[in-house]
Amino acid sequence: MADFEIFELGNPVLQSGATLRGAKLAYKTYGTLNRAKDNAIVLPTFFGGQHTANEGIIGEGQALDPSKYFIVAPNMLGNGLSSSPSNTPPPYGQARFPGVTVHDNVMLQHRLMTEKLGVEKIAMVTGWSMGAQQTFQWGCLYPDIVERILPICGSAKTSRHNYVFLEGVKFALTADDAWQDGWYDKPPTKGLRAMGRVYAGWAVSQAFYREEIYLKIGYSSLEDYLVSFWEGRRVLSDANNFLAMIWTWQNADLSDNPLYGGDYEKALGGIKAKAIVMPCVTDLYFTPEDSQIEVGFMPNAEYRPIQSIWGHLAGGPGFNPEDAKFVDDAMKELLAS
Amino acid sequence: MADFEIFELGNPVLQSGATLRGAKLAYKTYGTLNRAKDNAIVLPTFFGGQHTANEGIIGEGQALDPSKYFIVAPNMLGNGLSSSPSNTPPPYGQARFPGVTVHDNVMLQHRLMTEKLGVEKIAMVTGWSMGAQQTFQWGCLYPDIVERILPICGSAKTSRHNYVFLEGVKFALTADDAWQDGWYDKPPTKGLRAMGRVYAGWAVSQAFYREEIYLKIGYSSLEDYLVSFWEGRRVLSDANNFLAMIWTWQNADLSDNPLYGGDYEKALGGIKAKAIVMPCVTDLYFTPEDSQIEVGFMPNAEYRPIQSIWGHLAGGPGFNPEDAKFVDDAMKELLAS
Repeated sequence: MADFEIFELGNPVLQSGATLRGAKLAYKTYGTLNRAKDNAIVLPTFFGGQHTANEGIIGEGQALDPSKYFIVAPNMLGNGLSSSPSNTPPPYGQARFPGVTVHDNVMLQHRLMTEKLGVEKIAMVTGWSMGAQQTFQWGCLYPDIVERILPICGSAKTSRHNYVFLEGVKFALTADDAWQDGWYDKPPTKGLRAMGRVYAGWAVSQAFYREEIYLKIGYSSLEDYLVSFWEGRRVLSDANNFLAMIWTWQNADLSDNPLYGGDYEKALGGIKAKAIVMPCVTDLYFTPEDSQIEVGFMPNAEYRPIQSIWGHLAGGPGFNPEDAKFVDDAMKELLAS
Repeated sequence: MADFEIFELGNPVLQSGATLRGAKLAYKTYGTLNRAKDNAIVLPTFFGGQHTANEGIIGEGQALDPSKYFIVAPNMLGNGLSSSPSNTPPPYGQARFPGVTVHDNVMLQHRLMTEKLGVEKIAMVTGWSMGAQQTFQWGCLYPDIVERILPICGSAKTSRHNYVFLEGVKFALTADDAWQDGWYDKPPTKGLRAMGRVYAGWAVSQAFYREEIYLKIGYSSLEDYLVSFWEGRRVLSDANNFLAMIWTWQNADLSDNPLYGGDYEKALGGIKAKAIVMPCVTDLYFTPEDSQIEVGFMPNAEYRPIQSIWGHLAGGPGFNPEDAKFVDDAMKELLAS
C-alpha cells in the first residue's frame, strides 16, 4: 500500500564517523525523465513532513508539473519513512540513532539521483524550511550538476538564534519524564504537545495572531487552532524522529566539510546555480536578514522575499494560497530562464 | 533582615470573585514624600522580578532620584514577596492560588499609596514588561491621580501572539512530571530549565545572537549564556509563582472591568496622563506595532521606540547601558514636563 519506493543505501559512513547500517532512502517520483535527462527536479522534505506533504505544489499548471518535469521527492533521514529512530532496528534505533547532517542527506540523495535514477543534470532543487537547507547544500556540493535552486524560508547554515529557538522546542519535548531519554514505549505526549505549543508562537507571525487569521482558515477559536493545528501536528509523530531532525537542523552548515573547512562565505560562493532565495519578511527563525546575508555571498542569486504575515509558514505547502502563488510564479520564472 | 515592608491588605475580593485572605503587599520606598505630596513615583515589578531587580535604575543623577522623588516599589502578587503561591498558607497556597489580574494588583497598590502612604497625586508610574502593564492600568484606573506614565516594553492588553508565546513557556514548564499539577515538594527543575530555554529565543532578538552579544557581556559561549543566564534565571524560583504571574500576564486587559466593559479603545482613551510609550523595535512579544496601536488611542501619549537589538531586554534594568540611558533620558524629560 506504500505510495513510495525505497532505495537501499547499504552501509554509508556519516560525517560523524558513524555507520548507518542498512540505510534506506524513501522517495517518490512524479513524471518521467526525458531523453536528454535534463528535466529532473529534486524536492526534499521539511521538518516533520513526508513527501506527501509537498504534493499540493505538484501538478499540471503549477511550476512542478509532472507532465514536463521528472520530480524526485526524497524523504529526509529521521522523518519516519527514510531511515529514522522509529524504523531502525537495534542497536541503532530509538535513542541511539546517529546524528545525520544535511550534508549526509544530500550525499545520499545524490546517490539516488545518479546510481538509481540515472540523472546527470538537475534542472532545479527546491524545498521549504529544512528542505531549503538541503537545497543550498545541493547547490554547494554539486555545482556542476545543479542548474537552479530555489530555497524557500530556509538558510544555508542554521543561525545561532534559530539554534536557540530549537533548544526551546527540544527542552519542552524532553521535559516530559515519559520521554525516558528516548527509550520510551509509550509516546511522551505531554512533551509532544508542549513542543506544539512552543512552535505555535514561532512559526507564524505576531500579525497573524493580531489579525486572527486562524479564524479565517477554519479554526473556531485561538485554543482550537493551538490544539487542532499545533498539538495535532506534533502529538501523533515519534519524539525521537523529531529529535533526530532537530539535530540535523541545529547542525546545518553547508561549509562544515573538508572542501570548505567551515568557511561559510566561501561555501556560499561555491553555489554556481542560478538561485532565487525566498524568505518571508515575517519569518521569526529563518529570518529575511539571514537570507540577505547569504545572497550577498552567492554569485548568481536573487533575494526575493515573500511579503506576508504568515511568517515561516508563508512558504510552506498548503498554507496560504496567495504566498504559494508568489513562490510558484518565481519557480516558473526560474525554470524558464 | 528583610529590606522591604509588608502592607496588610486584609481580605480583598479579586476580579474573579475569589477572596485573597490575609493578602500582603511587599514594597519598598526610596526617598521621602515632600510637603506638597506631589513627588511620588510608583515602580511596579516585572515577571519573575522583585523590587530589588529594579534598584539599578534608582539613584542620584538618574531620573528616579530618591533625593528628589518618593519612589514606591510594590511587588506584584505572585512574585514570591507579595502574596504568592509559595507563601500563602493552605487552603489557598501552591496550586490553589487564585487568578490575580493586573487590575487587582493596581487596586491593591492604590490602597498602599493612599491608605498607608498618604499619597494623593502620583508624579509618574513606570515599569518594564509586566511592570508596564501595571503602568497602563494605573493610568486608566486612576486618571485623576496619575500625572505621567512611562511604560517600557509592555502593553495595556496582552496580544494574542504574546498569549501564545506564554502558552509555550507554560507547557514547557508543566511538561515535567515533577510539577505534579502544582503539588510538588521538590521543584520541577527540568521544567524550569526548559522554560528558561524557551525564553532564551524570545527575550532577545535574532540579531543579538547573530552578533554574539553574550560574548561581549561576560559569557564564554552560547551554551554558557543559555545555562548561566536563562536556566539560572528560572531554575531557582518557584514554579507555581511563575504560573501565577503567567496567568496575570495572559489575562492582562486594561478594559476588562465594569467601567470599560471590554472596550479596549475606550479604556486607552481614558488614560489622561502624559505618556511616553517605549517599546523596543526588536521586541518579539511586546511588539512595537502593538505599542503604536495603543498610542493611537491614547489622548496624551508619544510613541518613542528604543532602537536596539536587545529585544525585550532592551528596556529592562541592568541589561544594556546604552538602552538604559535612552530610557532614563526619556524619564527625566517626562518628569520635567
